[in-house]
This record gives sequence, structure tokens and C-alpha cells, in this order.
Amino acid sequence: ILHVTWDAATAEKGGYEHFMLKEIHEQPKAIRDTLAGRVKDGLVDLSQDLSFTEAELKRFDKIHFVACGTAYHAGLIGKSVVEKLTGIPVEVDVASEYRYRDPIITPSTLVVVVSQSGETADTLAALREAQQTGAKVVGITNVVGSSVAREADEVLMTWAGPEIAVASTKAYTTQLIAIYLLGLYLARILGTCSETELSDATQALVQLPEQVEKLLQDPVAIQRVAGEIAQHEDLFFIGRGLDHAVVMEGSLKLKEISYIHSDAYAAGELKHGTLALIEEGIPVIALATQKAVYEKMVSNIIEVKARGAYVLGLGLEGDTELGKSVDEVITIPDTRPLFTPILSVVPLQLLAYYTSTARGLNVDKPRNLAKSVTVE
Amino acid sequence: ILHVTWDAATAEKGGYEHFMLKEIHEQPKAIRDTLAGRVKDGLVDLSQDLSFTEAELKRFDKIHFVACGTAYHAGLIGKSVVEKLTGIPVEVDVASEYRYRDPIITPSTLVVVVSQSGETADTLAALREAQQTGAKVVGITNVVGSSVAREADEVLMTWAGPEIAVASTKAYTTQLIAIYLLGLYLARILGTCSETELSDATQALVQLPEQVEKLLQDPVAIQRVAGEIAQHEDLFFIGRGLDHAVVMEGSLKLKEISYIHSDAYAAGELKHGTLALIEEGIPVIALATQKAVYEKMVSNIIEVKARGAYVLGLGLEGDTELGKSVDEVITIPDTRPLFTPILSVVPLQLLAYYTSTARGLNVDKPRNLAKSVTVE
Repeated sequence: ILHVTWDAATAEKGGYEHFMLKEIHEQPKAIRDTLAGRVKDGLVDLSQDLSFTEAELKRFDKIHFVACGTAYHAGLIGKSVVEKLTGIPVEVDVASEYRYRDPIITPSTLVVVVSQSGETADTLAALREAQQTGAKVVGITNVVGSSVAREADEVLMTWAGPEIAVASTKAYTTQLIAIYLLGLYLARILGTCSETELSDATQALVQLPEQVEKLLQDPVAIQRVAGEIAQHEDLFFIGRGLDHAVVMEGSLKLKEISYIHSDAYAAGELKHGTLALIEEGIPVIALATQKAVYEKMVSNIIEVKARGAYVLGLGLEGDTELGKSVDEVITIPDTRPLFTPILSVVPLQLLAYYTSTARGLNVDKPRNLAKSVTVE
Repeated sequence: ILHVTWDAATAEKGGYEHFMLKEIHEQPKAIRDTLAGRVKDGLVDLSQDLSFTEAELKRFDKIHFVACGTAYHAGLIGKSVVEKLTGIPVEVDVASEYRYRDPIITPSTLVVVVSQSGETADTLAALREAQQTGAKVVGITNVVGSSVAREADEVLMTWAGPEIAVASTKAYTTQLIAIYLLGLYLARILGTCSETELSDATQALVQLPEQVEKLLQDPVAIQRVAGEIAQHEDLFFIGRGLDHAVVMEGSLKLKEISYIHSDAYAAGELKHGTLALIEEGIPVIALATQKAVYEKMVSNIIEVKARGAYVLGLGLEGDTELGKSVDEVITIPDTRPLFTPILSVVPLQLLAYYTSTARGLNVDKPRNLAKSVTVE
């Protein structure tokens, strides 16, 4: 007789101790599922998802990303990605601000709302108000039949599967994938990138699931850092460019489930105030995956080290410099600078997870928070 | 014989204990000086400051505000003000990010850089790079003959006088005045507001110095709150719309000189994560000066109160509701919603000041920070 020692709850979690850890590990599959059917002959093709004609797509001269929380952080990446690939100016707004600030929307504005549940109250209200001004709205959501899926003019589904933990992980990375797909598709239709460029980028995109798998294999260094930071009540994340958007998400993750007062800053802004808070032993998590600003970033790291901070540096595989300036190094597989967020966020998700468990907290259901915010 | 008991240092501070307090109190004069000569026949006229022709001004279809630290917070207000008054889309960027993100700049983009010293390294580099792409640059600075004043295509001086304290106060409020002047002038030339609207707004603008004076008269309530928050190591500011930009500045001020880990959030974003950090007794400073989002803001205040926060509410004179939901209320004189930042920031400056002195810290020269950041 085989004795199964799992209870029903553990079975639901597929053998993982918490939904969050299960969902972090589901990311390679979730990303693959979100890519599936959307890459044809080595190029992105969203013609099955979006019914915009070529002429309609070419008419958009402004794009607004609107979302809340983690999805807003995906929108921040969206600004860089879509501007770089298409040259169309992009604005990103927190939905609860967008609704009330009289944003300048014209009939040639494309509004992209992002919501895992598709029921986020402020995001949904923003969608409706944008439509009333005559804008076309694309909804990026994870729930078929949700309000966003039903009401948006066009829907780009993420296929992350059900996300149970309050702290979003696989929903975020699949939102990023949806945004990359959208950016590459627009660039293809608008002719703003060469076919070689698009095909190279698409090739790098489809390698991401395997690279995430690799990242998940050995969490030992992350667990060690988590053990250290679990003893602190304050912590800072810093980064530049796309790394800045990623540290905002990493900081939110940590804050939500560890209750450590964590905040994320554009590294170049430290000297304009926050450096006053850096004292002996305070943990600082520094991302240095963006080659174009690597040296500037290292000089910011040296500044916080000089004030006694305990620094975790997160860089690219093969970086032999970073280790000289920090206390711990974690690396991610190399990819195009535009795609690093998908990889660099994974160690930060794990860091939040292990810090929360090291503190003995309720990882999946943090205090005061609900999974989807359906009130304003 | 008259015995003068002031030493030279105190005399320099005009009888105030610190430069920061002196400079806070100099704001009515600094604002008057910055307005002087720029309002004619009840309307804003910058034709003596800016040599743009009417045709040149009408050509701008995009405006970028670029700055660091406190001046960046002024730029955030600039976005709201200029978009509302002119309908021209505005982007705001931290200079250290703007330089490296390949912003979309065309010959019809107006770039406005803001720097008290006119020597902020990242801001100056952004100015130069914007000019290289063919954009016109307006510099808002407080130092005649500074690099920004010399290199910008057009200069809009603030007349705050020398600012000695590291934590900027009068430089910030005069930067806001410069931005209001620019917005009202653009609106007049572009014809985007009616003359009545412009004249009413200008009338409200010139009343601000007197309203700031009134605010400075009685700091007792602020001192009481400072005594309370000085005992904490963590604190949150929340606000919506223009109040959100102001709480970012209030939080920076407090952080710089009190070393309390303070952060500012768009109030609607709390439910998406930060609410997990709100526990019994934690101070929250909530601004509720924006009529359009007043009820939403009060409901956010009730949320943090329900988690046991100690709340300081900052509202408009005559607000009899706010007191029901918060522990302390401070009010500012009523003005147009667009101009409240000039008034609401003053109690926050005083709060930072009194919290720093309650903690016995070096108010004028906080650790790790320099007055102007002339390195990258």
C-alpha cells in the first residue's frame, strides 16, 4: 500500500508549500502558453487576437497604458518597450489617477488597460471613460469572460491560469509577454523595425521560458539573502531604466508579503534625498542588467556601499565586475536588454517569498489585502 | 549701551535658528519677487523673459519637464498645470532616467529643465542632449549666470534669493510659480483659455504670497504632530491628483532631514500593496485639498484609520468633514485647485523642520547629502 501523506490543500498546491511558490514555478509554462500561436514563421502575429486593420493600427499616434499595482508596473515596462520598438509616444498611468486627471485622449489614442482579474474597479472605470472619449481600448487580462475581456474593444489574453496567491507573479510575467507581443506586432505592421531585428528579437523572446526554468533551479543564494533581510524593517531597491520598473515590482512584492517597509528608487535620484536614509547594515537590492547604464549603476552601488549598506547585486551572467562592489551577487541568463525584466523579476519574487516564510508570515494571504480590488 | 546677543551665524540666519526655517519664512517675499514684473494689466506676460515669437510658441506640440529631486516634483505639478491650461501633452522625467531612455524628441518638442542651482549634473546633461536633438530648452533656475542659465535657449528665473539649507523650500515654491506663469502665458498666447478664465486665475495667483504668510503664522498644530511623528521610524504620505505630487515633495523633505523612512503614494494605489504595511499607530499624512477627488480621498483615509493609523489630514479652510476621520486637521486657505500645491507644501515643510529639530538632528546639513548635485 502506498501512503499518500499530502492533504487536499497541499495537493491543490501541486506539492508546493504555498500557492505563491507554485505560481512562481508555473511561469515557464504560463509564458509558453501566452506565446503559443502568436509566433508564426519566426515573427509575431496577433491577427487572430486583434481585429484592427493595418490602416487602423497605423492611425494610432499615442498609446496610454492604464493599470493598478503590479499591472501598472507591467505598464511601465510597456512604455519603454513600445516607444523603443515603434517610436509612438506612450504614457503610463495608475488607473485611480488617470480617471480624474482629464488625460488628453484623442480618437487616435490607443488605450491599453492591464488587469489580471479583469475586474479591478479603477481600471474598469478608466476603460469605460476612455471609450466614451472615443479611444479604442485593448484589454490585457487573464480571465476569459471578465468585465475587461467583455468590454474592451480588443482583448489580448494572458494564459497564466488561475492565480490564487494575493501577490501576483505569473500574471505579471505573462502581462509582460503580452506587452512584448504587442510591441513587436505593432513594429512589424508599422515597419518601424527591420525584419532581421524583429526576427532576432522574436527568437530571443521564445527562449525566455527556458531561461526562467534555469533561474528557478537553484534558490540557495536567494534564500541566504532572504535570511539576512528578514531581520530588517526597512530596505531599498534601486535600478535605472527598465531595471527601475522591475525594482518597483520587486519592492511591491516584498512589501506585500513580508511587511518590510521597502521602496524602489531610480538609482540616479538617491543623491537627491533618499541617501540620507542609508545607514550601516541597511539592505539595498541593486539591479544592474542594463548595459547602457551599467557603469552609472555601479557608481550608485558604490555610493550606498560607502554608507555601510548590505547590497545584493543582480546582474547578467558572466558579469565579473559586480561582485567587487556588493555583498552578494545573483545573475540572470543573458538576453536582449528589452527582455531582462522577465528574468530579473524572478529572483525578486523568490526573495519576497523566502523573506516572508523566514518571518513566518501568511505568504498567500497577506494582511489588509485582497486578490482583486473590485472596489474603488 | 545696547547688548546684541546674536552671534554672526545667527545674524546671517536673520534671527531664525536654522537657514531652513528662515527660508520657509522667506517664501512670501520669494514668490512676490518671482511674480514681479510678469503680471501686466491682470494677465501674465513673459515677453520680457522669453523671446519666443507667437508663431514659435504655437508650434510646440509636446512639452517635457526634466529635473531631479525637489525640482522633479515641481515638474510633476507642471504636467498637470500645463496640460490643463493648454491641452499640450506633457511628460515629466527624472533627468538621470531621461538621458538614457532615448526619449522621443522632435523639433516641435519644448524641453523645460528645472534646477535651483543651475548646475545639477544630470539636468545639465539632459539640457545639452535635448538641444542636440534640435529641441528648444527653457531653463527654470535660481542662479543668474549658472550653467543652465547660460546654456538654455530661454531662461525663466526664479527670484528666491540664495538658498543655504540642503532641503529646498523657497526654491521649490518659486519653481511652481515659474511653472504657473509659463502655463498661463502659454494659454494666453495659444488662446486655450478665455480671457476671463486667465484673469481670474491670475488674480488668484497674486494672492498666494499673502496666503502663504497667513499659513506661517501659527505652527502650533504642526509642532504637535511633529512631536508625535518624531517618535516613529516609518511613515506614509498619501494624496490624489495634484496632492499626490505635493506629498511626494513633503515625503522627500521629511526623509531628508529627519531620517524617518517616509514614502508617498497615490492614495488609490494603497489597496494594491502598501496597505499591508499600515499597522497600529503608524503615522499617515493625508492631503485632501482637491475637490474633484475629495470623497475618494476621504474613503482612503477611512481605510488607513480602520487599520489603526495615526492620521494628519490636510484640507481646505472651512472643511468640517475631514476632522471626523482623522486625528489632527491642518487647513490651508482656499484657492483654485491648480494653485493648492503652493499652500499645501508649506505645512509639510514646517512638519519636516519641526520633526528634525524634535529629533535633535542637523536640519540644514543632513547626512550624506549635498546642496547641489554636480556629479552624476
